[in-house]
Amino acid sequence: MSQSSFRKPAALAFDVFGTVVDWRTSIARESAIFLQRIGRGDIEPAAFADAWRFRYIDVMAAYRMSNRAYVTLDVLHREMLEDTLRAHDIDPASIDEARLIDWNKAWHRLNPWPDAVEGLTRLKRGFPIVTLSNGNIALMLEMARRAGLPWDAILGAEVTRVYKPDPQAYLGTAEILGLPPEELCLVAAHHSDLAAARSAGLQTAYISRPNEYGGRAAPDASAAQAWEWSADSLTGLATLWGL
Amino acid sequence: MSQSSFRKPAALAFDVFGTVVDWRTSIARESAIFLQRIGRGDIEPAAFADAWRFRYIDVMAAYRMSNRAYVTLDVLHREMLEDTLRAHDIDPASIDEARLIDWNKAWHRLNPWPDAVEGLTRLKRGFPIVTLSNGNIALMLEMARRAGLPWDAILGAEVTRVYKPDPQAYLGTAEILGLPPEELCLVAAHHSDLAAARSAGLQTAYISRPNEYGGRAAPDASAAQAWEWSADSLTGLATLWGL
Repeated sequence: MSQSSFRKPAALAFDVFGTVVDWRTSIARESAIFLQRIGRGDIEPAAFADAWRFRYIDVMAAYRMSNRAYVTLDVLHREMLEDTLRAHDIDPASIDEARLIDWNKAWHRLNPWPDAVEGLTRLKRGFPIVTLSNGNIALMLEMARRAGLPWDAILGAEVTRVYKPDPQAYLGTAEILGLPPEELCLVAAHHSDLAAARSAGLQTAYISRPNEYGGRAAPDASAAQAWEWSADSLTGLATLWGL
Repeated sequence: MSQSSFRKPAALAFDVFGTVVDWRTSIARESAIFLQRIGRGDIEPAAFADAWRFRYIDVMAAYRMSNRAYVTLDVLHREMLEDTLRAHDIDPASIDEARLIDWNKAWHRLNPWPDAVEGLTRLKRGFPIVTLSNGNIALMLEMARRAGLPWDAILGAEVTRVYKPDPQAYLGTAEILGLPPEELCLVAAHHSDLAAARSAGLQTAYISRPNEYGGRAAPDASAAQAWEWSADSLTGLATLWGL
């Protein structure tokens, strides 16, 4: 089906980690420095970044199963960091607290993909652009100021108080924007995220990010579907819509 | 006391209606058109705008006393519009629904004070700038896109789920930003708002807006205190901080 047969959305909501910013090389670059400082320069920084990030799936699943009150992703990232350190035989308690806080804030300092700032700037001319990330507001705000990401609003987990892929994360974001779900489009590099958005009634735009996992296949590659829109960059998505 | 004896805040949170945008002339200008359309061009538009806005105090007081679940300011503005129409012997049910929705959205289309865009742009170089308004996110987002207000994030009542002057509106905003209250500064043209922020532990910056009420005294003029910072415009506030 031609992409032009779909009705243009009224607003765009963006997944951020992996879609807009390159978490892997950013976390690896910073972790290399921290690992050196604690005398563990022997650990491969990209593998450490992967180990930290991949705890996310288990931590999110455990969080959803528990009756734990809402906590921010900063808190969950810290727990994942401590687990990752222990998995490398490092006792987190042996590291200075200020250093652990700073290391955890590496997630606030992720670099955008090369097309992200120009792509968002062009897309913003035609649509309100908001975040729909599991990242908390302070994290997203600091990242945006540092990287120059021109969001119209920072929405997502901390505003709806539920984490993706809970349907309410998508529906609540549309409601806040005053839109029926079908007029909001999730832009994401992850099929699993897009599938959940589609189940909730949103439109979907897929951005391919072949380098997100260092060139290896994405863990959710098998969940691919025919999405309403598809591009290989955010500038490509802007071009698709004549922006 | 010299203003320079205070420690600079880490972030700025802005009241919006009256501080950043001129609600009175904007609502009067739009209401003039709507009143003409319903054959009531005899009603003075600025007086209609005042009547609509001044219901706010009663509506907010009633809302706080009730156990009503959170509703957005768009919903409250609509109730206030219908009350204001009835006070002018106009039955809201006699007006087309699409027209009432559009009239109510005049609050999404308020014009900024002449110094606001330049002032915010300069202040943003030195501080994260966020809204701390009772206006809902969709309202603030549409206003910002139309007027060019460069917010880093839209916070306030819809995010904390309480309306100012509830202390939690101020404390919750600081918490979301990851700041102790004393590192956040409320910027507002209203002494009552600043007094509540100060009681919650925030810093305070007063912006004088002598034309907010068409040149008449503000209803909270008697609540003036010595605020940490004071300027006659947002560009003046930027200059105060060397931005």
